[in-house]
Amino acid sequence: MTTHRSTSTQPSTALIVGAGDATGGAIARRFAAEGYHVIGVRRTAEALEPLVNEIRAAGGLAEGWACDARKEDQVIALFERIEREIGPLEVVVFNIGANVHFGITDTTERVFRKVWEMAAFSGFLVGREAARVMRPRGQGSIFFTGATASLRGGNGFSAFASAKFALRAVAQSMARELGPQGIHVAHLVIDGAIDTAFIAVNFPERYATKAQDGILAPEAIAAAYWSLHQQPRNAWTHELDLRPWSENW
Amino acid sequence: MTTHRSTSTQPSTALIVGAGDATGGAIARRFAAEGYHVIGVRRTAEALEPLVNEIRAAGGLAEGWACDARKEDQVIALFERIEREIGPLEVVVFNIGANVHFGITDTTERVFRKVWEMAAFSGFLVGREAARVMRPRGQGSIFFTGATASLRGGNGFSAFASAKFALRAVAQSMARELGPQGIHVAHLVIDGAIDTAFIAVNFPERYATKAQDGILAPEAIAAAYWSLHQQPRNAWTHELDLRPWSENW
Amino acid sequence: MTTHRSTSTQPSTALIVGAGDATGGAIARRFAAEGYHVIGVRRTAEALEPLVNEIRAAGGLAEGWACDARKEDQVIALFERIEREIGPLEVVVFNIGANVHFGITDTTERVFRKVWEMAAFSGFLVGREAARVMRPRGQGSIFFTGATASLRGGNGFSAFASAKFALRAVAQSMARELGPQGIHVAHLVIDGAIDTAFIAVNFPERYATKAQDGILAPEAIAAAYWSLHQQPRNAWTHELDLRPWSENW
Amino acid sequence: MTTHRSTSTQPSTALIVGAGDATGGAIARRFAAEGYHVIGVRRTAEALEPLVNEIRAAGGLAEGWACDARKEDQVIALFERIEREIGPLEVVVFNIGANVHFGITDTTERVFRKVWEMAAFSGFLVGREAARVMRPRGQGSIFFTGATASLRGGNGFSAFASAKFALRAVAQSMARELGPQGIHVAHLVIDGAIDTAFIAVNFPERYATKAQDGILAPEAIAAAYWSLHQQPRNAWTHELDLRPWSENW
Repeated sequence: MTTHRSTSTQPSTALIVGAGDATGGAIARRFAAEGYHVIGVRRTAEALEPLVNEIRAAGGLAEGWACDARKEDQVIALFERIEREIGPLEVVVFNIGANVHFGITDTTERVFRKVWEMAAFSGFLVGREAARVMRPRGQGSIFFTGATASLRGGNGFSAFASAKFALRAVAQSMARELGPQGIHVAHLVIDGAIDTAFIAVNFPERYATKAQDGILAPEAIAAAYWSLHQQPRNAWTHELDLRPWSENW
Repeated sequence: MTTHRSTSTQPSTALIVGAGDATGGAIARRFAAEGYHVIGVRRTAEALEPLVNEIRAAGGLAEGWACDARKEDQVIALFERIEREIGPLEVVVFNIGANVHFGITDTTERVFRKVWEMAAFSGFLVGREAARVMRPRGQGSIFFTGATASLRGGNGFSAFASAKFALRAVAQSMARELGPQGIHVAHLVIDGAIDTAFIAVNFPERYATKAQDGILAPEAIAAAYWSLHQQPRNAWTHELDLRPWSENW
Repeated sequence: MTTHRSTSTQPSTALIVGAGDATGGAIARRFAAEGYHVIGVRRTAEALEPLVNEIRAAGGLAEGWACDARKEDQVIALFERIEREIGPLEVVVFNIGANVHFGITDTTERVFRKVWEMAAFSGFLVGREAARVMRPRGQGSIFFTGATASLRGGNGFSAFASAKFALRAVAQSMARELGPQGIHVAHLVIDGAIDTAFIAVNFPERYATKAQDGILAPEAIAAAYWSLHQQPRNAWTHELDLRPWSENW
Repeated sequence: MTTHRSTSTQPSTALIVGAGDATGGAIARRFAAEGYHVIGVRRTAEALEPLVNEIRAAGGLAEGWACDARKEDQVIALFERIEREIGPLEVVVFNIGANVHFGITDTTERVFRKVWEMAAFSGFLVGREAARVMRPRGQGSIFFTGATASLRGGNGFSAFASAKFALRAVAQSMARELGPQGIHVAHLVIDGAIDTAFIAVNFPERYATKAQDGILAPEAIAAAYWSLHQQPRNAWTHELDLRPWSENW
């Protein structure tokens, strides 16, 4: 939060968990462009190299580290390393998705559990460790990426909606607990197709609406995260939605 | 659903998963009183003996079986046994709670996972197996017990609200998928203290309002489940709330 | 509410405001069949004659009175007359709809105002007068009929959704205020086509699903109102939805 | 919306209906500071003079006009005059509140109607006229100020919540209709005390938390409106909440 940011010469620090997709990458680029030292993580570090190189080429500070956010020890180690090697975390974004679509009787217990571990349990671990380092400092932002399935279940979405609902409950509970301690927790519902290779390949007609701004631009999503982080603590948003103008909802 | 119930002389069958608490016990007694052959399950069967004996003494049909609903193989075996030994399931109630209260940084990964396994993952397994046996018959009711924490997170409720949100998403997704296949899926939000020994011991002032109907009577909750099951399929309720008249909400 | 109903030999009294449509008529018939003296009102009394005659022919007690529920003096006079001539009101149902569909710039101020007066302002007047007579007795039920448009706005529904949202807020506010005073206030969201001549004529394909229970039966809707009124005060429902099994939602 | 703003040398135009309170004034100042020609309106123009003078003294463009937004002819005339004398409207903010608190039986029909006319009917008229002028141009922003009472009713809030629910339904319906036509409609839930003389006088203890950012700063609220208007059309927010960090919710 701008008005409470450290005045030291050290750059502020932002962690993006799930930096491998278009949204996570755009958030990382945006905070780097604003002068933050950005740590992007995903399960394997190699895939983060292009993002890290791009940010560095633009004069920014970025690291691309591996972390399986479903593993408590790895998440704890991640926060310890950032605080020790990079600096005090000011922003943490949890952005891991796990969209699957199965009829209820085709949903294996493995799928149900795995989707929850990726999209909800990881979010809890990341949120909790963020709270742990931010609370003594009485400031910081923790943002969670939601989806339409965060708000309502749907035919074929038992596993995905269940995990996204679960994550939203974590965000709401943390917001109510940590707000009065100076930590800004928010949940962003991204509703609509995002400009990604996946959409281009699998939903070409939808993708063709890009020329008319019909799909979500990752940069525009990133701008919303940045905007939330800029809010002074006397006017915080805890939940908002983002969708293209032409979206039916 | 009455209008579609089997006309055979065999009694209809109802499964209550989580029959060990006051609510589950009352639901079991109610369906037994209405002529159903009731199977109550919880992790250990011994604790169900008083309930089974009470129902049988009143002339009803009841079984008390052990099942750890977090274990896929046990849930699958449970449904197979009921269908084989007792009869086709017409009603399945998932009623396992797991209320815990911890600040976010005091919530261990073990607690978070365990609460989800009890209150959400088990519900998915039970709901899915119910769908599997009911779908070919094009009828049946699957009811999930919710709580205030199903609707909003709260300070100290990261684990519990997250699990209850997750369960509600399962209920909504199943309702939208299975409704058009003749299966009535509903989610009941129980909001308020229930008349139990736990409340009597831990919240004596609250319990004292019992004389003024200030706490939820398990029999009244059970009546709501029965009432939902009585709805003809041209007017189904998918979500309702239940609370005492004097509750602040 | 059964457990608190007067034990006098005088029949209990139920008022249905908006008794002219299929739903209102079915609610009137149901409460009459349960032994209530039913007063059905709409703007002109003539149109209520068939309903009143049908109830009386079946041995029930019914009156069909005219009342423009948008007029405060008429609503006040209605309640005074019922309490004076018929008996203390135990149940009041507000069931006036006003479904219209216009694009925003085609919505005249007259339409917007009229829809609100019919669907929301009338509901406030009826609810308030019901509260006035019931409060001193510390019991009674006040039920409001809602619709899908009570929960979300939609393209072309500025006027209708606005009025239905407004009515729901009245129901919620009254429920929170009057519950602790012994009065059961509930809001029922009726989501789907109802078995009426209007649907038969204007949506014949939809109506054809009646044979498969694809449209809401007024009798089934009425059963939900009856069921709510039967709830003891230690387990009240304040909001529920009703839709056919095959409805997409 | 920035990317589609007119490139002419003429400044863009913003209308604030309900510019007399702290929030409306701050929104006016913010858009003026960003180079907009701002028209602030309230029932009497005199009270707007300090705001207009302040904006002009700072080098901004501002008008303070009288308009009773409950009167259709006045609202129509307002939009005609702005488009004729000032320029094409790019932003319209509806910010009229009408917070009252009465128990249900103390709520007169006059209060209920007046609150609705101020807080909901006016919003419909303003939103509709905004749609009329913006639609042919395929762009523009229409923002509505909401409150906690927009989301849930409460004891004593029949009139206020009813009007605020009604306004939210207008916003949702317009958003769904006008979004695909290029017009950004959003609803902002302001949840908490705002830094005003009213709060200072009537809630001094609450006001004392101002030093700890415990009450909403009008400038911070205004920043949220500005931020929404900056969103490109491929990522629009339709609903967000704003509250101080220390707010219980």
